[in-house]
Amino acid sequence: MKKIKVIQFGLGPIGIEALKLAADQSWLEITGGVDIDPAKIGRTLAEITGVAALSVAKVYPSLEALFTAVGRPDVVLHTAGSSAASSFTQLKPALDLGISVASTCEELIFPALKTPDMAAEYDQLCRRSGARIAGTGVNPGFVMDVLPICLTGVSRDVTSIYVERVVNASTRRQPLQAKIGSGQNPDAFRAKFAAGKAGHAGFQQSVALLADAMGWKLDEIRETCEPVVATSRVVTKFFDVAPGQSLGIHQKCYGLCGGETKIKLDLQMYLEAPLPHDAIVVKGRPDLNLVLNGGVAGDDATVAALINIVPRLLAAAPGVRLMTELPLPSWRNPRPAQR
Amino acid sequence: MKKIKVIQFGLGPIGIEALKLAADQSWLEITGGVDIDPAKIGRTLAEITGVAALSVAKVYPSLEALFTAVGRPDVVLHTAGSSAASSFTQLKPALDLGISVASTCEELIFPALKTPDMAAEYDQLCRRSGARIAGTGVNPGFVMDVLPICLTGVSRDVTSIYVERVVNASTRRQPLQAKIGSGQNPDAFRAKFAAGKAGHAGFQQSVALLADAMGWKLDEIRETCEPVVATSRVVTKFFDVAPGQSLGIHQKCYGLCGGETKIKLDLQMYLEAPLPHDAIVVKGRPDLNLVLNGGVAGDDATVAALINIVPRLLAAAPGVRLMTELPLPSWRNPRPAQR
Repeated sequence: MKKIKVIQFGLGPIGIEALKLAADQSWLEITGGVDIDPAKIGRTLAEITGVAALSVAKVYPSLEALFTAVGRPDVVLHTAGSSAASSFTQLKPALDLGISVASTCEELIFPALKTPDMAAEYDQLCRRSGARIAGTGVNPGFVMDVLPICLTGVSRDVTSIYVERVVNASTRRQPLQAKIGSGQNPDAFRAKFAAGKAGHAGFQQSVALLADAMGWKLDEIRETCEPVVATSRVVTKFFDVAPGQSLGIHQKCYGLCGGETKIKLDLQMYLEAPLPHDAIVVKGRPDLNLVLNGGVAGDDATVAALINIVPRLLAAAPGVRLMTELPLPSWRNPRPAQR
Repeated sequence: MKKIKVIQFGLGPIGIEALKLAADQSWLEITGGVDIDPAKIGRTLAEITGVAALSVAKVYPSLEALFTAVGRPDVVLHTAGSSAASSFTQLKPALDLGISVASTCEELIFPALKTPDMAAEYDQLCRRSGARIAGTGVNPGFVMDVLPICLTGVSRDVTSIYVERVVNASTRRQPLQAKIGSGQNPDAFRAKFAAGKAGHAGFQQSVALLADAMGWKLDEIRETCEPVVATSRVVTKFFDVAPGQSLGIHQKCYGLCGGETKIKLDLQMYLEAPLPHDAIVVKGRPDLNLVLNGGVAGDDATVAALINIVPRLLAAAPGVRLMTELPLPSWRNPRPAQR
């Protein structure tokens, strides 16, 4: 079988992890990387990732430079930011040429929420060029949206959806512990969240994707975030948090429709959070009550979702695609079905 | 929006329940039914189902008779048996005309397992005519195959899959209690199972669908079924079971690959089974451990799966389709995405 040619756009921690996983896949061929960091440009992906097999693939400063040097890939793996608007602009050179994009950009889970005009414009562009672009990940992209939607596949009726996720942030990498405000002053964190500079990204997009799948026209999406404050000292590999400082976040997002709360998402992500898990309650007929004991590990699952989506993305019609428009998620099996 | 025209093939308990649910959907139009029972032919679907709105739609003895009388539907809802071979033959008049079929036939979950030649032949036929046919349901079709596959969408690696399902059969309809051997002599039930005349249908197809999605080429699918024997008297609405008689089944199905058990499905379905639930354990990276507390109710969920699949079936490419080839399952939302 012909291998699918991929390149990696964005060589931060998630991009490097995605490359390591991609390098393990016999059905993928990695032809290069793109990053704006001058310290990375020109180096090989073997140097960047430690994967010896990537000694030929290099880092380029732009998609255009990469295409000129090594030709066009089939798919761009994109892990370079949370903003749909920036991502669309970054990726235009690929989409213009009909090259498809799988992205971990949180807002691309439902790009019409924040950038409806741009989503429509890029949808047209993709339909003309033959490209597909979709956002994926573990949250947003799976536990709080795709998995509950899949569950309603056996529902005669759905009246409301509740999802909670508890993550023990002590087990996660430093940037995540920093992002949730570990060790910060709670009021300083509140101010940052109010300014849109802290908290979990993509929450509102999960609510929008759920509402879209259920056919609910929401009047309002409401989001709150409170710091979880340490009552005693907490020490991790990266932070030493004194009593009164923040351990992380308790973030909620509501989807309201005609005065009713149709959707509620509840995320607790803080250092030493006990009993990590994901839970879904679908009210309707039948009621459904799902628990993922221990939850789904964030970074491992995010890069897995990114790689696993590749064959499904290529099977979809051109356009700006939602996860609900792609074939059932699955561990990558790019083989044709045994039929 | 133009309504999707459906007809119901098979007017047993599940067919009637499917019609009731379909009649509630503003996006569906029911134009008739097909059944071989002379007592039903010529009657209206309102008489058969008690749904007054179905007073114009009638029961015909064959698909051909229905097409002649009321024209072609867009989709046939099919609830008339467990055998893929019989279902293909029954449905040929629709598939020949490019009319798609959603079916609860258990073997259609993975028709290539028992009838590979027929599955290939009908796949070609559908590709020529433009029809799609797919099997769906709650089990097989969801809790022991589609849901675990969806879960692996966030897996970097999968080494084995275990699913267990415990159903309290006391809460189910009479035909199901009978099918699992309630009140029968355990040895008589064993003989029936050995002759392929008892037990849960579609178990091996669930294993085959899981293996296909994971890319595992199985050497063997092994299935066992033991009666669960009453230690004291058990009385339900339909059965009075004496000690020593059967209460139901404990059925297992294994998928083996190179001496390893890659897949194990474990189904307990018996009268008064305590703690009904569904549970999934995916071993790999990460390990995933899912529990559906209370489980998923069988009949409600089966007809829901059947109706919910309709818009997704019509969005797929023509052919004999697997659930893994259709867009993400969801509570029916046939509206175009809000974009």
